Amino acid sequence: MINKLIAKIRKTNAPIVVGLDPMLKFVPEHIQKSAFAEYGETLEGAAEAVWQYNKGIVDAVCDLVPAVKPQIAMYEQFGIPGLAAFKKTIDYCKEKDLVVIGDVKRGDIGSTSEAYAVGHLGHVQLGDQRYYGFDEDFATVNPYLGSDGVKPFLKVCAQEKKGIFVLVKTSNPSSGELQDRLIKDGDVHKPLYEVLGGMVADWAQEYMPDEGDYSYVGAVVGATYPEQGRILREIMPKSFILVPGYGAQGGKGADLVHFFDQDGLGAIVNSSRGIIAAYQQEQYARFGGECYADASRAAVLAMREDIAAALGRL
Amino acid sequence: MINKLIAKIRKTNAPIVVGLDPMLKFVPEHIQKSAFAEYGETLEGAAEAVWQYNKGIVDAVCDLVPAVKPQIAMYEQFGIPGLAAFKKTIDYCKEKDLVVIGDVKRGDIGSTSEAYAVGHLGHVQLGDQRYYGFDEDFATVNPYLGSDGVKPFLKVCAQEKKGIFVLVKTSNPSSGELQDRLIKDGDVHKPLYEVLGGMVADWAQEYMPDEGDYSYVGAVVGATYPEQGRILREIMPKSFILVPGYGAQGGKGADLVHFFDQDGLGAIVNSSRGIIAAYQQEQYARFGGECYADASRAAVLAMREDIAAALGRL
Repeated sequence: MINKLIAKIRKTNAPIVVGLDPMLKFVPEHIQKSAFAEYGETLEGAAEAVWQYNKGIVDAVCDLVPAVKPQIAMYEQFGIPGLAAFKKTIDYCKEKDLVVIGDVKRGDIGSTSEAYAVGHLGHVQLGDQRYYGFDEDFATVNPYLGSDGVKPFLKVCAQEKKGIFVLVKTSNPSSGELQDRLIKDGDVHKPLYEVLGGMVADWAQEYMPDEGDYSYVGAVVGATYPEQGRILREIMPKSFILVPGYGAQGGKGADLVHFFDQDGLGAIVNSSRGIIAAYQQEQYARFGGECYADASRAAVLAMREDIAAALGRL
Repeated sequence: MINKLIAKIRKTNAPIVVGLDPMLKFVPEHIQKSAFAEYGETLEGAAEAVWQYNKGIVDAVCDLVPAVKPQIAMYEQFGIPGLAAFKKTIDYCKEKDLVVIGDVKRGDIGSTSEAYAVGHLGHVQLGDQRYYGFDEDFATVNPYLGSDGVKPFLKVCAQEKKGIFVLVKTSNPSSGELQDRLIKDGDVHKPLYEVLGGMVADWAQEYMPDEGDYSYVGAVVGATYPEQGRILREIMPKSFILVPGYGAQGGKGADLVHFFDQDGLGAIVNSSRGIIAAYQQEQYARFGGECYADASRAAVLAMREDIAAALGRL
């Protein structure tokens, strides 16, 4: 799946992933109205609104980008109907041949992490049938419990030829409270994210596809921390970096350069509300709520240009 | 809700939480057979089997224990039908007046953590109706992203009078890979779990219910690390400690003493497969699969005695 992601990045010339993180306040009025008219002002109605909203965006951008990253929390808040919309979104994106990164940030002790890995990337065998619970192509994984929480994901990735992105340095303001703490490592000190970067590099080395330069094991490093990105890029040469924090969180094209390899690969940049709620920004307000998906398309094109300029490709 | 938990611990004299972590291999044959006959060998069939299995256990132990802790991963592996069984289990346990701790280990950047907090502990407002997605009483929270990933949970806890348990020192063998690393703190070094314990203590102090000695903010510390439990008990005087790792993972009654306060409160000990799959252990094999729930009841009684002996109450 990592090779599919790379092939699609090359084809679209856009190392961009669209974060499908639909808050209800992003969903244009006409969609909310119609969904609530059909299902009532209920969780089912909210889930339908979210799904229709996603569908419009996916239809508008699926030829421009290689991948999408639905954030499961935004669906989970609407309970079971919300999670059904999450699954519907995954299935639809896969129909459109998009690579789907489930932003689930799961992680637990061994046997429990295995259940998460099975649910999101793998399958359960019942009788002679295989059933895939959510069936994303990649998942994000929280490593706080150490390697026995990550290894079950690695096992499933190898079986299914899928991948994970391990949280190493997250994009949020308080990420440093734990991730930047200086760790005693022999006689020297290094920040926790470097320690973790080293662990990711080892896992990456161990879990390589049969062909290609990049591993099934990637990492999450926020666009808001470009200097750390540069260091981590060196520490983890086999790992693709999923870069959140571009746009609404403050990351800019110029900040992204260090996340990429010299071949212009090795990173994929996420933008969520900057794309999906583009019509609510002054810059794209002319599209209005009715044409929100066209605004999203315009925002993707602008982002592609911003990144290409930063990478010196223009 | 923390006060309800404490009242129920006092009433049952059992600081015990039953971990409802149903793996399919635990579910007795007669239940699987009947569920698969009704729904086919499908995810729906597996979810029905899990739900019927849970119901039997809950019926058998609900008068003995204050709380249950369903582990969402075990349901999530079966996709949407599995999560519907998770919700059904929560609702049923609440009908039985059990306190429900959702072992979800969620955690993300601010706005996303808010969605998780809303989905598991809070509600969404649609029109003039409130909808609760999963509606657990407590949730476990992963703090790797720092305080802005935890604070949205605190806000929702204060609104709903619910609580969280923050992962501080988990029970698994590799928990030390990150959690035990020595952090430079001024001129001294202390392990990461102590740093985090300090953060939990601060949050706990800030989020106290109107009455009572314990905060809405608790912590997870594994029974497998009793020495760390002693230290963390001192660092976090206002926090209840949720103690996993008893039984199958190796924790024993005698190891638990340090997790409790002098009043015999302050901790609640989880056992999952040691209770729910008791009938598969030699000690309780006489019950057989048909009477699996009676075996679970016997295992709860033995655990209650083990803990009481350790706490010197016998």
